[in-house]
Amino acid sequence: MSRIVYVNGRFLPYEEATIPIMDRGFLFADGIYEVSAVLNGRLVDNEAHLARLDRSLAEIGIRNPHDAAGWTRLEEELVARNGLKEGVVYMQVTRGVAERDFVFPSDGTPPTVVMFTQAKSIAANPLADRGAKVVSVEDLRWKRRDIKSVALLAQVLAKQHAAAAGASEAWMHEDGFVTEGGSSTAFIITQDGRIVTRPLSTAILPGITRRAVMRLAEEQGLTVEERAFTLEEAFGAAEAFFTSASAFVMPIVEIDGRRIGGGQPGPLTRRLRGLYLEMAAA
Amino acid sequence: MSRIVYVNGRFLPYEEATIPIMDRGFLFADGIYEVSAVLNGRLVDNEAHLARLDRSLAEIGIRNPHDAAGWTRLEEELVARNGLKEGVVYMQVTRGVAERDFVFPSDGTPPTVVMFTQAKSIAANPLADRGAKVVSVEDLRWKRRDIKSVALLAQVLAKQHAAAAGASEAWMHEDGFVTEGGSSTAFIITQDGRIVTRPLSTAILPGITRRAVMRLAEEQGLTVEERAFTLEEAFGAAEAFFTSASAFVMPIVEIDGRRIGGGQPGPLTRRLRGLYLEMAAA
Repeated sequence: MSRIVYVNGRFLPYEEATIPIMDRGFLFADGIYEVSAVLNGRLVDNEAHLARLDRSLAEIGIRNPHDAAGWTRLEEELVARNGLKEGVVYMQVTRGVAERDFVFPSDGTPPTVVMFTQAKSIAANPLADRGAKVVSVEDLRWKRRDIKSVALLAQVLAKQHAAAAGASEAWMHEDGFVTEGGSSTAFIITQDGRIVTRPLSTAILPGITRRAVMRLAEEQGLTVEERAFTLEEAFGAAEAFFTSASAFVMPIVEIDGRRIGGGQPGPLTRRLRGLYLEMAAA
Repeated sequence: MSRIVYVNGRFLPYEEATIPIMDRGFLFADGIYEVSAVLNGRLVDNEAHLARLDRSLAEIGIRNPHDAAGWTRLEEELVARNGLKEGVVYMQVTRGVAERDFVFPSDGTPPTVVMFTQAKSIAANPLADRGAKVVSVEDLRWKRRDIKSVALLAQVLAKQHAAAAGASEAWMHEDGFVTEGGSSTAFIITQDGRIVTRPLSTAILPGITRRAVMRLAEEQGLTVEERAFTLEEAFGAAEAFFTSASAFVMPIVEIDGRRIGGGQPGPLTRRLRGLYLEMAAA
């Protein structure tokens, strides 16, 4: 089965999927993206991803070309055409094609829509069994990290730095505090069992998996504290993990070469991962 | 004559010029660009632009696919094929095409090269006669502004804000000080005739036209002070202007609705513009 992607109203083979060089996504990073997980052939928490897509587009003044039902139909057709059982659906919307000029093009310019799928092992991810390594990097990003834009160069450099150090994720820090991962939300669990993650602001992306995990934890009577934490506090934490649409809940066993919780995925983290998997599969 | 652009080794009609959806420029803003002016059919200060391109690419670990002589040949052929007399040559290099993953693709992945021309009135620009209006906006950009990356969303939003307010440029400010324009370098001239612009750092782009104008000013025995200045100081300046490859030296007559220097292009600014035009045409 050949890979099928979606570009501006057409489902077509990946090899034929191109955009004009004057697309503002290519010239200016003038676009927004979203990634929804697929488990057992079904989209996970997709309404929340589409709501965030809608919000991000509104924040930078791009018209959302589809309502949630329209997006969902396209995603489901793409999943079906690719026979995707487990992985992600990627969606990107840019301000469209226009002669290069920083100023927005005329109102009638149609946004560009690109969608594709990627097969990934999400539920049975071997990294979740052995735990991920993380390295810290300075957070170089812009000041509106609540907008899920494709201006991702700082994240690319952060995650490349992590990969070069043998790690799976970079934890970005600013003014002494961890902001978030290169493509995930950062959590620690204190020695007395409190789950700590940074409160929402323009400093971080409002994670969809973050929100779901916080809700699941609270339903279990666990304590969730929304506050910033330092790298030093993370080094001394009982457990640490990160969340994202494609990693779900990922245990961390090492930060900057320091073992966390004895170098094994922590029990509370494994419990949260199990709860999330149950919810996602439901 | 149809518009000819350059993509990865081929000169081709603009209408046929596309890139794959998996280009990292489109997905991650993982690329660098440059813009060189063309006056009387000839490139202006092009060696300096190519040196900055080389530096920007090195800073984010993209191999420069051409040496300066190779770039210059491509630029000159593009200018010739488009019969361009006055305007700009745009060059963009991205980390190439690879399955979406933040981490760099394998070393053998060829960078993507896109080049095109735009005809513009640069020497005889009516805006230079009446003077430009500027509005201030918070500088939302990332912390490595010395790299000329295509992650330009903050600049797009700044310049759109300016355009919506009837202005030609946005002056971005941070911690009380002006950093630079959305796509230009900011200068003021004090009441006692000193030319002031921010020193180079990671907070601003090392402007090629900035450097040329500073050199021209010093050759004339004028005083150039490299230091940060506030918006308040700019409001009270004798003159103000911005520089860029496509605007050369552009007089400013209004900042945030306040008239600068009586609302007319200032005499020293006009002199600097004249000197730069002479140099560019030489």
